[in-house]
Amino acid sequence: MNINILTKSTKILSTKSFDILARNFSLSSAKKMRFVQYRLKTGGPQQLGAQISSSGDIFDISGVDHSIPNSLVKFLASGNGLYEKAKRIVAEGKSITPIDNVELLSPITRPDKVVCVGLNYSGHCDEQNIPRPKEPMFFSKFSSVIVGPHDNIEIPPITSSVDWEVELAVVIGRKAKAIRPDQVNDYIFGYTVAQDVSARDWQKNRNNGQFLLGKSMDTFCPLGPAVVTKNKVDPNNLTIKSWVNGVLKQDGNTCELIFKIDFLVSYLSQIVTLYPGDVILTGTPAGVGMYRNPPEYLQKGDILESEIEGIGRLRNVVA
Amino acid sequence: MNINILTKSTKILSTKSFDILARNFSLSSAKKMRFVQYRLKTGGPQQLGAQISSSGDIFDISGVDHSIPNSLVKFLASGNGLYEKAKRIVAEGKSITPIDNVELLSPITRPDKVVCVGLNYSGHCDEQNIPRPKEPMFFSKFSSVIVGPHDNIEIPPITSSVDWEVELAVVIGRKAKAIRPDQVNDYIFGYTVAQDVSARDWQKNRNNGQFLLGKSMDTFCPLGPAVVTKNKVDPNNLTIKSWVNGVLKQDGNTCELIFKIDFLVSYLSQIVTLYPGDVILTGTPAGVGMYRNPPEYLQKGDILESEIEGIGRLRNVVA
Repeated sequence: MNINILTKSTKILSTKSFDILARNFSLSSAKKMRFVQYRLKTGGPQQLGAQISSSGDIFDISGVDHSIPNSLVKFLASGNGLYEKAKRIVAEGKSITPIDNVELLSPITRPDKVVCVGLNYSGHCDEQNIPRPKEPMFFSKFSSVIVGPHDNIEIPPITSSVDWEVELAVVIGRKAKAIRPDQVNDYIFGYTVAQDVSARDWQKNRNNGQFLLGKSMDTFCPLGPAVVTKNKVDPNNLTIKSWVNGVLKQDGNTCELIFKIDFLVSYLSQIVTLYPGDVILTGTPAGVGMYRNPPEYLQKGDILESEIEGIGRLRNVVA
Repeated sequence: MNINILTKSTKILSTKSFDILARNFSLSSAKKMRFVQYRLKTGGPQQLGAQISSSGDIFDISGVDHSIPNSLVKFLASGNGLYEKAKRIVAEGKSITPIDNVELLSPITRPDKVVCVGLNYSGHCDEQNIPRPKEPMFFSKFSSVIVGPHDNIEIPPITSSVDWEVELAVVIGRKAKAIRPDQVNDYIFGYTVAQDVSARDWQKNRNNGQFLLGKSMDTFCPLGPAVVTKNKVDPNNLTIKSWVNGVLKQDGNTCELIFKIDFLVSYLSQIVTLYPGDVILTGTPAGVGMYRNPPEYLQKGDILESEIEGIGRLRNVVA
């Protein structure tokens, strides 16, 4: 009797599982997943969700399964089991929230690290009249300065030369220490768009040459709109652009990266352990404000847009 | 009848409360509290505890009241109510663990920020033959490189010039944005001892002049042994020392600070919001290895001790 019940249950599970697996297979083989953090416009807590297209509605993940954290950093730190759960939730398509009903937040909040690479596009070296670096140069932002894809960038009263830098950001998926370049892809979860907003007066002429303060003012790291999983994204061949008030300012391609992502992540992992959710900004192409003639800086009311092919677009108002 | 019960209960509560309050008052007026994170030597999870003397046994806080987090960062983020609860637990003295039974961990783990100040003791400027700075210079460490007061400092294979810097560290207690120097004390929770371990080759000659990598290798930020609450500590008059293998190397006093703590915290809060648990290292006195003749660096097997009056001593083996 007990055996019969088990057998029946197993059959039911098997049929359902097969169905899920079939859809899942179709999903994972054909589509990339886009992870977002969001809040309903009507209020409520932050939620973790997923999209399967950039303007698509949102599959509730933490909302459907309360064992899944509402933070992508915690989701990644919990290991691969949750990723499989999330894929099943998307495949089942049970609970979907229309994109128009949500406010997108940064897809990553409070990671252990936000690490940035300077001087990593040849065009950005040329516009400064400096040679290409022989090794990568890293600096950091405090993770509390991350804001969402549609949040304001606030210019504090202490600076008058705030500049734009659109960047491809890598999101780490697994703890990584002293890994080789050929292992790096296994440790990456996905990619997102970042703005490395920079107060040039503080970066260049204050703080004794250390970039930290000029790069780490509150709101100086818009991220989003989604973290796109690494499958189906070739991070070394993506157009990357920024606009101020609709005027194209940066127009590059990640193929110009001087130090490629596998090298950067491997190099950094020799210094410090990388943790799930850590964000690495990979540098900006030519076209920033400081090296224009005359120099241009962001003013209150400006609209800064930042886009990477296949990932999405940030739209941040300067306040 | 109900009223009688309430009255009796109230009386019982009142007597007990009075007793607690009396001891509490005596405690808060006469003694500073020392917050620690620890684990039983026999195993188990991290716990938050308190001492009332530096070699004293530990009052279990998160162990007694499960509504109190086992992390000091989360404890502080939860607001002042928990501090009052913790004081009551100490005053009641119910659950005490002998100090010999525990492994002390870093009293702060995974804060949003570890910010460091360079060149902030006149003697440390003099030993480098450079003038006193006109404004403070900040850099940072990744918070994941924090280790405990008795943990190993690991020298990675990529550096051969690892140096010591004992520092007084400020722990922020409340969210602080653009505060004035005279308001700073209200936002500080307490103080601890820090080692700003530094790979001088990377700090000075690599990474294009940015200190980040040389300061942020794994294990390069021992902290502890406790965070001492700010009452009864005069942070501007504490002896501060370090020893390598028992030989005194640094012997200063925080009265030498070029930029005082109220100025540093106010200045930083103009740039970026400070959050509960954020750690600010305030600079190191003269006597580091690099400026000795000949220069001295830490070697595997060395014992580095770091002490600040009234707070305690770190003892870290170099591995």
